[in-house]
Amino acid sequence: MVRRNDQRRAALVDGAIEVLARDGARGLTFRAVDAEAAVPAGTASNYFANRDDLLTQAGARVYERLQPDEATVTRHRTAERDRETYAELMRELVARVSSFRTGYLALLELRLEATRRPELRTVLTERVRADLDANVAYHLASGLPGDATAVKLLYLALNWLIVEQLTLPDVLTPQERDELVAAAVDRIVAAS
Amino acid sequence: MVRRNDQRRAALVDGAIEVLARDGARGLTFRAVDAEAAVPAGTASNYFANRDDLLTQAGARVYERLQPDEATVTRHRTAERDRETYAELMRELVARVSSFRTGYLALLELRLEATRRPELRTVLTERVRADLDANVAYHLASGLPGDATAVKLLYLALNWLIVEQLTLPDVLTPQERDELVAAAVDRIVAAS
Repeated sequence: MVRRNDQRRAALVDGAIEVLARDGARGLTFRAVDAEAAVPAGTASNYFANRDDLLTQAGARVYERLQPDEATVTRHRTAERDRETYAELMRELVARVSSFRTGYLALLELRLEATRRPELRTVLTERVRADLDANVAYHLASGLPGDATAVKLLYLALNWLIVEQLTLPDVLTPQERDELVAAAVDRIVAAS
Repeated sequence: MVRRNDQRRAALVDGAIEVLARDGARGLTFRAVDAEAAVPAGTASNYFANRDDLLTQAGARVYERLQPDEATVTRHRTAERDRETYAELMRELVARVSSFRTGYLALLELRLEATRRPELRTVLTERVRADLDANVAYHLASGLPGDATAVKLLYLALNWLIVEQLTLPDVLTPQERDELVAAAVDRIVAAS
């Protein structure tokens, strides 16, 4: 049933992300994805076993697209190992994630949809936990200051900072957000 | 147009919260709210000027229902002013907010809907900012340790902790969540 055309599949999954962000999880139908990806009606149903399959792949694709590029990774590898550098890296991280606005909003829609769909909840739980563990492992190997608890606390604080920025951007000013990132790193890392 | 029956209005707004949490923002129709509140079809349309009015009132009602009761406020007023007490109060706060599961999920749905509805965004922005400022003012007057930045950082970290618990409850274990609350207060407050 499932056709092998990776480029078209990617276009459909990217279309699903846009539909999720714009119309919410309930707006995500095969028909809406076909329209978004500008392919003939009926295409999406040939690529995905069912709606859960499409939702799951959309989530995985957001994580894939949020990975830093080679240049960024190299820059991180050669950066200083002090707290100022760490704060700068976190500001960059917030900026990079926020700039994929529809991707992050789609993830929030998927989280809410997961409260209604146990199968989706299982897949997302594994994905998020693996991502958190990878962040902790990467951090501990990096030589940057701060322990595993610091990484988890930053994960919590920065995620809600991004939610705030993307859903109600005027609650905090851009300057306030920058100061909060710097303060989060300073306090959470200093005490570890 | 708008009838004066406060009890029925409250029942309709509470019904809207349940519909938002269960079916998402796109599932929130006057008809669905009538059914949820078990009132005759057409009732909600007599109480609310339009859908934005209903969404706004649902958001305000969640905040209202999240307020601590008299006993809790009194207990806070007479509690010790040390960091251990602060951590205990924050654990209680997380438990209280999480226990109104549908209310918190409804707020997340409203935030996502606000990305599509500028009027809702304006109202929610004012509400959230007023709430944050009130938390800061309350805290500074309370004599508890920690500055305004500490309150804001805890607001960020604890909100995402609640998102995690309510949408993907198995990403963090209950023990891990408790430890993160304690560590958040310890580190963020200690450094202020």
